[in-house]
Amino acid sequence: MVASQGPDAVFPPSASPSSRGSEDPIYHAAVIDLLGAVGYGEISAFERLAADGRMAPTLEDKVALQGMASAQYAKISPIVDRLREHGVDPYAVMEPFREAFDAFHAHTAPADWWESLVKAYVGDGLANDFYREIAGFLDNATRDLVLSTLEDSGRTEFVVERVRRGIEVEPRIAGRLALWGRRLMGEAFTQAQHVAAEREALSELLAGGHVTGLDLTTVADMFARITHRHVERMGRLGLEH
Amino acid sequence: MVASQGPDAVFPPSASPSSRGSEDPIYHAAVIDLLGAVGYGEISAFERLAADGRMAPTLEDKVALQGMASAQYAKISPIVDRLREHGVDPYAVMEPFREAFDAFHAHTAPADWWESLVKAYVGDGLANDFYREIAGFLDNATRDLVLSTLEDSGRTEFVVERVRRGIEVEPRIAGRLALWGRRLMGEAFTQAQHVAAEREALSELLAGGHVTGLDLTTVADMFARITHRHVERMGRLGLEH
Repeated sequence: MVASQGPDAVFPPSASPSSRGSEDPIYHAAVIDLLGAVGYGEISAFERLAADGRMAPTLEDKVALQGMASAQYAKISPIVDRLREHGVDPYAVMEPFREAFDAFHAHTAPADWWESLVKAYVGDGLANDFYREIAGFLDNATRDLVLSTLEDSGRTEFVVERVRRGIEVEPRIAGRLALWGRRLMGEAFTQAQHVAAEREALSELLAGGHVTGLDLTTVADMFARITHRHVERMGRLGLEH
Repeated sequence: MVASQGPDAVFPPSASPSSRGSEDPIYHAAVIDLLGAVGYGEISAFERLAADGRMAPTLEDKVALQGMASAQYAKISPIVDRLREHGVDPYAVMEPFREAFDAFHAHTAPADWWESLVKAYVGDGLANDFYREIAGFLDNATRDLVLSTLEDSGRTEFVVERVRRGIEVEPRIAGRLALWGRRLMGEAFTQAQHVAAEREALSELLAGGHVTGLDLTTVADMFARITHRHVERMGRLGLEH
């Protein structure tokens, strides 16, 4: 199967893969890894959003976070189904990614409701950016599945409104939350590097010879774009990076 | 509006209300209370199921509990919308019920995964039975809404399978889980009584003169039916009551 560049693809046509499909074992292993990572990411995001909802100052806020958690849940079963189609145990495939995601969440446990809100928004945004970038490297069917996990039903917009209003009422929280956003970003990159170091097929997909036109410079550009979008997101919250 | 008895109604036609509708202030207050209780019950059930999922021994079990939590979430917004149609602040209406539901959960914090599973199943079942009973007292529109929260998508069946298999492997847990089921039932009734004592309109709806043919004997019968179904449910789990 040869991927065509859809309207959502962020990579130039030169990155279009020529050797993808089930006949390429490294590509196949990378896709399994990627779906496993996305799947466990969703499970752990559900768990964190649900737990952080307990810090909500109002019932309405709590329900909003429960809604964000449930939106994560809705994305799990398509991933599980696709992994089964690939003939693997979906939950076994997710296991290697538990450590990195759990470490991310352990190192970024929000101290209060504001930190929970910013984490929900920034974490969701970073994950979406990363998946959107990765999608450019994938065959059509896998790309469509990964892009379908990006559907933003506008649930996160309440975060923007809440944080901006919070800063208006209590301007002193802005500095702390700006630092918090930076820490979230740093921790996400740290854990992504751990995963890349440990999962050879995945990092080969990203940096190796399996995709024409893709090399370490391309990966550096990708991280630069993700950082850029993170800064934009912080700006929408009314926070400096 | 006069309610007709649908196929799901459990009450004899003599319990059919004659004085319902927005013109009856006590009935109206009782409906608001009921929807508030159902709504907060769902919010707190989401929170508990999501938290108990952290005790799951496998990722698949964790995802199953996340699915039960998300099913609770899906039922919240119809309740919120209906309360808004009634012209009230949905979350303010839920507040009076926080204490009883939170006390129920605080007094029945599961000690391990088995207790979490049994609580998820028994708690869901008791809530459904209670709502099904209450539905018989309501006007058509409210009844349909309350009955729609009962839709069992078969999510709870995994609990039956897990608990029965657990008892096969480790028969000694059966005695403890049977006692646990009894405690869940007792605590639910205790909190229901607190609510009834504090919410006059709701208890009038259940026991007062607002519904023809309904008196304390009818309420006693209702609790007897709920108890009977609880015993059946424990039997399905392979547990004595």
